[in-house]
Amino acid sequence: MADNENPIRFGIMGCAEIARKVYRAIKMAPNSTLHAIASRSIDKARQFAVRNNLSKEVKLYGDYNELLDDLFVDAIYMPLPTSLHLKWAVLAAQKGKHLLLEKPSALNVKDLDKILEACESNGLQFMDGSMWYHHPRTAKMKDFLSNLELFGQIKAIHSSSSYTGTPQFLENDIRVKPDLDALGALGDAGWYCIGAILWSMNQKLPTTVTALPAIARNSAGVILSCSASLYWNEEKTVATFYCSLISHETMDLAVYGSNGTLHVEDFIIPYDERSATFSFTSGAKFLDLHIGWNVKPQEVQVACQLPQEAMMIQEFSTLVKGIKISRLRPDCRWSSSTRSTQLVLDAVKNSIDIGFKPVQM
Amino acid sequence: MADNENPIRFGIMGCAEIARKVYRAIKMAPNSTLHAIASRSIDKARQFAVRNNLSKEVKLYGDYNELLDDLFVDAIYMPLPTSLHLKWAVLAAQKGKHLLLEKPSALNVKDLDKILEACESNGLQFMDGSMWYHHPRTAKMKDFLSNLELFGQIKAIHSSSSYTGTPQFLENDIRVKPDLDALGALGDAGWYCIGAILWSMNQKLPTTVTALPAIARNSAGVILSCSASLYWNEEKTVATFYCSLISHETMDLAVYGSNGTLHVEDFIIPYDERSATFSFTSGAKFLDLHIGWNVKPQEVQVACQLPQEAMMIQEFSTLVKGIKISRLRPDCRWSSSTRSTQLVLDAVKNSIDIGFKPVQM
Repeated sequence: MADNENPIRFGIMGCAEIARKVYRAIKMAPNSTLHAIASRSIDKARQFAVRNNLSKEVKLYGDYNELLDDLFVDAIYMPLPTSLHLKWAVLAAQKGKHLLLEKPSALNVKDLDKILEACESNGLQFMDGSMWYHHPRTAKMKDFLSNLELFGQIKAIHSSSSYTGTPQFLENDIRVKPDLDALGALGDAGWYCIGAILWSMNQKLPTTVTALPAIARNSAGVILSCSASLYWNEEKTVATFYCSLISHETMDLAVYGSNGTLHVEDFIIPYDERSATFSFTSGAKFLDLHIGWNVKPQEVQVACQLPQEAMMIQEFSTLVKGIKISRLRPDCRWSSSTRSTQLVLDAVKNSIDIGFKPVQM
Repeated sequence: MADNENPIRFGIMGCAEIARKVYRAIKMAPNSTLHAIASRSIDKARQFAVRNNLSKEVKLYGDYNELLDDLFVDAIYMPLPTSLHLKWAVLAAQKGKHLLLEKPSALNVKDLDKILEACESNGLQFMDGSMWYHHPRTAKMKDFLSNLELFGQIKAIHSSSSYTGTPQFLENDIRVKPDLDALGALGDAGWYCIGAILWSMNQKLPTTVTALPAIARNSAGVILSCSASLYWNEEKTVATFYCSLISHETMDLAVYGSNGTLHVEDFIIPYDERSATFSFTSGAKFLDLHIGWNVKPQEVQVACQLPQEAMMIQEFSTLVKGIKISRLRPDCRWSSSTRSTQLVLDAVKNSIDIGFKPVQM
């Protein structure tokens, strides 16, 4: 069956800003279509439809339950505030909907496990909304990191994820509200750093996680910026990250190996969606007298026929189709990497809460 | 008086590998000349003279004391193992020699203070051998970091300094011997990271220094790689670094501000000595739908008429000449930044020794 026959029918639950980007991705992916959207009020759903020029065929619901009861919806994309994930994600799974859940996946791993259990027991695909894993550049970078000759063993990692929240954002956005997204910068920006570090380590969990004594909070106590270190005892690998909602835009990933180094400065959202680059050096030595290097960084350019978010939708829809049509099992690599990220995120939060002491995992 | 009249006469004390690079720099700088070299044996001094094609006029000594007693020597460049710095640097100052001291400056700040006191009480110029401060790129980077509009307040810093010691190096080099360079990777590679972080912070000392629980040592207990975090309470700025003698060559400095970001990947030794680059972004925002950035990194290229080490010699010689001819006071900015670096280095070592606990400064 061709990929574009019987596209996977998405329902979007919650009309957050990010839903506009994912709607565009659903349109662009060859094997998906938007079937319905739901907001807490029908007016908001209508506003979203107008603003995004939705086709008249897209159903609009003013109640999340109506969306979940729509038998034509295969999969839910859920960009709700994190504190609502547990309730609605479990409900969606109970209604048989495959789940593309916006990050951070849950307030803690206990909640996430309930969501994953609901998906698993109903034979449903789970994936979180981290788009960058799906960019072809990411696979190219992994090729480099996996190359023992060019890169070698992994020694250290640094990542940053930050942006400048506008005064309005810092006043009103759900990501700075303790009852909506209690994880603040750690859950939003830090999710990517932790994910990138674990991705570099092939999802192996660190032995120790220690938050650094550097944290900013808003008046409600929500984290606006923080920093942490991760350590793998067996490999003696160390990773550090910095995440912030009150700093200039950064998306750095630097991976230091025994034979090579990788640098990318836009790993979460590429500067340009048509192509993206990373740079590496390998086998660098100093010239005689140490007056220069024998090599300079090599830039690798990777074209992207679809934006990474459309690649994400396409991959998710392919997996859903495999389950729906070919009765395959859900691909648990996605829930597994989400869970590892959440576990480390919990450990960072725990370390902060106990006064920046090390947390053994 | 023209800069190249009456050049400052250097004596090199110790024929280490790095002395070859600095000899070349003394030749290239317009206001300095090599007057003499000394090794522990006259044979070693002769070998150095032959290998480096020294002019027959350069005096060769087989005893450090003879070099210090040479009345024609204005300044000593001292690349001795760190454990010998205290004895010989103090003696050099007592003999009235200005001092260019290879890094790490001393085993600890107590020793360093004796060296600095000896220089100060004899009215002598002190400078450590960190070359990168003298590259014109460094001043350009500081211009960017000082620009409140383009860069803003400093939020976070990351630095790395690493290289792969050959098996022979890891067996025999002074930098892995507890009786010669007990500070290992921290004193050698880490010196640059700490220096770059303090340079970014205009030499303001952090309030807290915490080594990360990630350390490799050789069988004699010398540090081969380590990592640490620094924190400034007032600014809420955090810095992390990774230094290693058993990892691929890296020299990263990333400085994250409220309005801009700076990246440089060869800050210690530029890829090419004729020109060097750094990159920055400023005022970066996401495009609508967050499908890209409004700006890409700007690369700044800085030409260098003399290699940075020759710039260092030139600057040092200018200061010495000011003291010698114009009776100026020594420029204490250099001893001050050396001392700050040593203080933080001591704090990292202290934190390692007490089990990676925070050290308040």
